[in-house]
Amino acid sequence: MQKTRSFWGWGWQEELPSGEERDRLTGLLGAFFADHPPRPTPYPALEAIELPEPAVAVPAEFADFCDAGAFERAAHTYGKNYRDLVRGFQGDFAAAPDFVAFPRDEDDIARLLKWAAREDVAVVPYGGGTSVVSGVECGRDEATRHVTLDLARMDRVLDVDPVSSAARIQAGARGPVLQEQLAEYGFTFRHYPQSFELSTLGGWIATRAGGHYATLYTHMDDFVESVRMVTPAGEVVSRRLPGSGAGPSPDRLMLGSEGIFGVITEAWIRVQRPPVYRARASVKFAEFDQAVEATRALAQSGLYPSNCRLLDATEALINEVSGDFRQVLLLAFESHDHALQPWMERALAIVREHGGRVSSGPEYSDGTDEGGSGEGAQWREAFFRAPYRQSALVSLGMIADTFETAVTWDQFAELDRVLRERVQAAMNEHCGTGLLSCRFTHVYPDGPAPYYTLIAPGREGELLEQWYAIKQVASDTLIEYGATITHHHAVGKVHRPWYERQRPALFGQVLRAIKAELDPAAVLNPNVLIRRDGGA
Amino acid sequence: MQKTRSFWGWGWQEELPSGEERDRLTGLLGAFFADHPPRPTPYPALEAIELPEPAVAVPAEFADFCDAGAFERAAHTYGKNYRDLVRGFQGDFAAAPDFVAFPRDEDDIARLLKWAAREDVAVVPYGGGTSVVSGVECGRDEATRHVTLDLARMDRVLDVDPVSSAARIQAGARGPVLQEQLAEYGFTFRHYPQSFELSTLGGWIATRAGGHYATLYTHMDDFVESVRMVTPAGEVVSRRLPGSGAGPSPDRLMLGSEGIFGVITEAWIRVQRPPVYRARASVKFAEFDQAVEATRALAQSGLYPSNCRLLDATEALINEVSGDFRQVLLLAFESHDHALQPWMERALAIVREHGGRVSSGPEYSDGTDEGGSGEGAQWREAFFRAPYRQSALVSLGMIADTFETAVTWDQFAELDRVLRERVQAAMNEHCGTGLLSCRFTHVYPDGPAPYYTLIAPGREGELLEQWYAIKQVASDTLIEYGATITHHHAVGKVHRPWYERQRPALFGQVLRAIKAELDPAAVLNPNVLIRRDGGA
Repeated sequence: MQKTRSFWGWGWQEELPSGEERDRLTGLLGAFFADHPPRPTPYPALEAIELPEPAVAVPAEFADFCDAGAFERAAHTYGKNYRDLVRGFQGDFAAAPDFVAFPRDEDDIARLLKWAAREDVAVVPYGGGTSVVSGVECGRDEATRHVTLDLARMDRVLDVDPVSSAARIQAGARGPVLQEQLAEYGFTFRHYPQSFELSTLGGWIATRAGGHYATLYTHMDDFVESVRMVTPAGEVVSRRLPGSGAGPSPDRLMLGSEGIFGVITEAWIRVQRPPVYRARASVKFAEFDQAVEATRALAQSGLYPSNCRLLDATEALINEVSGDFRQVLLLAFESHDHALQPWMERALAIVREHGGRVSSGPEYSDGTDEGGSGEGAQWREAFFRAPYRQSALVSLGMIADTFETAVTWDQFAELDRVLRERVQAAMNEHCGTGLLSCRFTHVYPDGPAPYYTLIAPGREGELLEQWYAIKQVASDTLIEYGATITHHHAVGKVHRPWYERQRPALFGQVLRAIKAELDPAAVLNPNVLIRRDGGA
Repeated sequence: MQKTRSFWGWGWQEELPSGEERDRLTGLLGAFFADHPPRPTPYPALEAIELPEPAVAVPAEFADFCDAGAFERAAHTYGKNYRDLVRGFQGDFAAAPDFVAFPRDEDDIARLLKWAAREDVAVVPYGGGTSVVSGVECGRDEATRHVTLDLARMDRVLDVDPVSSAARIQAGARGPVLQEQLAEYGFTFRHYPQSFELSTLGGWIATRAGGHYATLYTHMDDFVESVRMVTPAGEVVSRRLPGSGAGPSPDRLMLGSEGIFGVITEAWIRVQRPPVYRARASVKFAEFDQAVEATRALAQSGLYPSNCRLLDATEALINEVSGDFRQVLLLAFESHDHALQPWMERALAIVREHGGRVSSGPEYSDGTDEGGSGEGAQWREAFFRAPYRQSALVSLGMIADTFETAVTWDQFAELDRVLRERVQAAMNEHCGTGLLSCRFTHVYPDGPAPYYTLIAPGREGELLEQWYAIKQVASDTLIEYGATITHHHAVGKVHRPWYERQRPALFGQVLRAIKAELDPAAVLNPNVLIRRDGGA
């Protein structure tokens, strides 16, 4: 069955929670927030929404690959953060693009960029549309005319080099699409952001996506051998290399550029042999502090587990990973080359020294099963389901959001304490109550990448104000306590005010100077990462 | 005993080969190149050389930290590549700086940069002066007046964070100096470029130095948490973070900037606990191809050896690691956390599957010995001695140089074949004969970093022409066969013509745009990395 993308919510329309699942969620929330029960409202219908008149028509020369229909315009209006879901759910599509381009090749892109520069039309590069930072949105107040450039048609694996374990892949390939093509060559990507089903290679590069591995290869940055990017000034094509010391890395300038310099069209990527050997275990801790110390010891051990995800007790509970209000550490090693008993045994010795109790496993396999059982499998299911649930929560009148960061170990305890205190206080003040949980998505020898989830009851007509009040408190605290405004969700427009406080002041001018060189007419993704007006 | 830096050759004057060592070298070369015997000439004396009149005097306000004496001016004229050694040995110091500044703090640097911009005096940032790419040299034809800015006085470890395993270190700290300070806190750096004794943290960052670990943490890039840089436009200070996805990495723009944007003054660095457990072995192979395949399998195994250095038969012979003309793979694992038998056992199984014969070890230790025995220990000694020997070779009338690169595995065999063919032909043509050897310094899952050493007899008065003819052939071949012009020796001025062919064309304009922003008067390190005249 051909599935249809939701024009307002996460992912595939057919996968949005409905019937029993939505009822169950409603019941659960009713139990959590007895004084502020959820208010179920039906999902919106495309027919009922109003779109602004297009300010610019599809030029005849681009008619072959552009679409100005209501569905595509609506579906490309926003990314998928909380504000986007609320606006989409409420039928506010004022920021809809004038049309959507689906280029077939680099030439289509170059021609479109040339036209846009000449006609002063803003261009928003678009991969999976899963941005949670308003990275693919352009308001009418930001550009009177804008076009969204969706890479969906450029989704092929063009070349595989089995000797070097690398593949040349087009930027528009979604996770499952590139995975399927790689499998034919006996390779796999091993990069599973939560958006895996929908997001694309180009988006992962443009936003420095975080993925599967909890250690070592945490970001897309670590997999990129070379990049092709079409800018209004011409192509930037970096050389395919396993490593280099020749000047500042050009790839690292494209990684994280969020569509403001050019459109990433393809990349050579380091790919993996599918794991054969796996070792899995879950460990429970009575205290969060204890669990953090154990995780730090693992991160500094040189064992490099592929999974080292610490869930605090609330996180474990709401994801139905553990019902006994314990912190759960999900631990896994994987290899295509060797059995992993010595790795896992040492890792479990470390966690036991720190008061952990092994609650599941160690389980070893030398087959090719993806799943496993126990807490890890339950987590994986909840993990990929979570964004669909967030859309459902919006339809229940809830505030539901996540924020993530990274900070050095010496700062973490204090940051976490203050964050919980202030964000809880903000939820209490603005929503009457709320729930905040924390997990580590990735860990480094010098610090964790904590990821917070918050749920609070919203008030009709005030959702966005309530949400932003809480978001501000969380973001201010991250910056104040030495953390990053984002570890792998990117900056976009939502995080920009805090990014401006985080980045070196002069680096803002550097980014503007680069943009002036590559996108002199400043048509690409206005106000993402840097302000169009050139403000501080 | 206080040692004195050689004003013309590598390192400490007292350590330059003399007496028996130099005689032995002369004898060895006489045996290798019977038809072109070495021509020993005494090392030059400072008193005999002539320096140009300074074009600018030390301003009174900087008198406290500047030196216009002959020794400092001569010693800061060049880096240490072959051309530098020859010019220094021959007493050509036409490119001497007008004076040398030894700033005490960032304020000294900022004031000096301000003065230089106002007075149009070029400024060359200088760490250990070990550049082999003319990265610390400025000819009179490039800038009529120039000052060298030596960070030697800024060499303190300012702060250690034992929880996160990180340290804040000033840029002018040489390897042994920062090591000694870190040891007081129970930490170590684990970064040993060949220049370790002399080169500095700031130089390592500015040039993306390669170091100790053969896998994973191959470049300085991987250790940097944050950087401080003083530019003519102000300070660039990045946030200390274990990981981030907030825009293009500012650190990655400073890494590899080779002093053209600003002066790196300090950095937070990920440091290590000293290894407790070690596992070492050497493996011999009859054929180079075989050895390469074994090394590739190791690089793709996920075992991450700390040492995985493959020496071809010639390399093993001339470094006195092995006398039987076999390829030698030096293999080591190290850990502060766990014993390493399973790692080494699997690694040895892999190399045996590829026809390797274990010639020494496996040797396991759980103490804190640095040395070990066998081929590995002999290699280490030869490794750090090699640059001193290169200076001696110059005094014997030889051409002696190295070049290094990285390339994907699929390209390596062809690149290596063509390189050996062409470079040998060039040596034969220009020198009558010559010796070329290859080792891998670092290996990645997607490719090796090969390092070539060449020795050929030179003709009096023609050394530099002969050298450059060979250098051109090697460099052209690297670019033609998809390799990088440098894996960890940087670009400087020597590699710039090939760097211009390697980097994306538009990236040159990007670098110039950044420089215009940070160094608007263009006083910093003219013609390094990018051309001062703005050429292609």
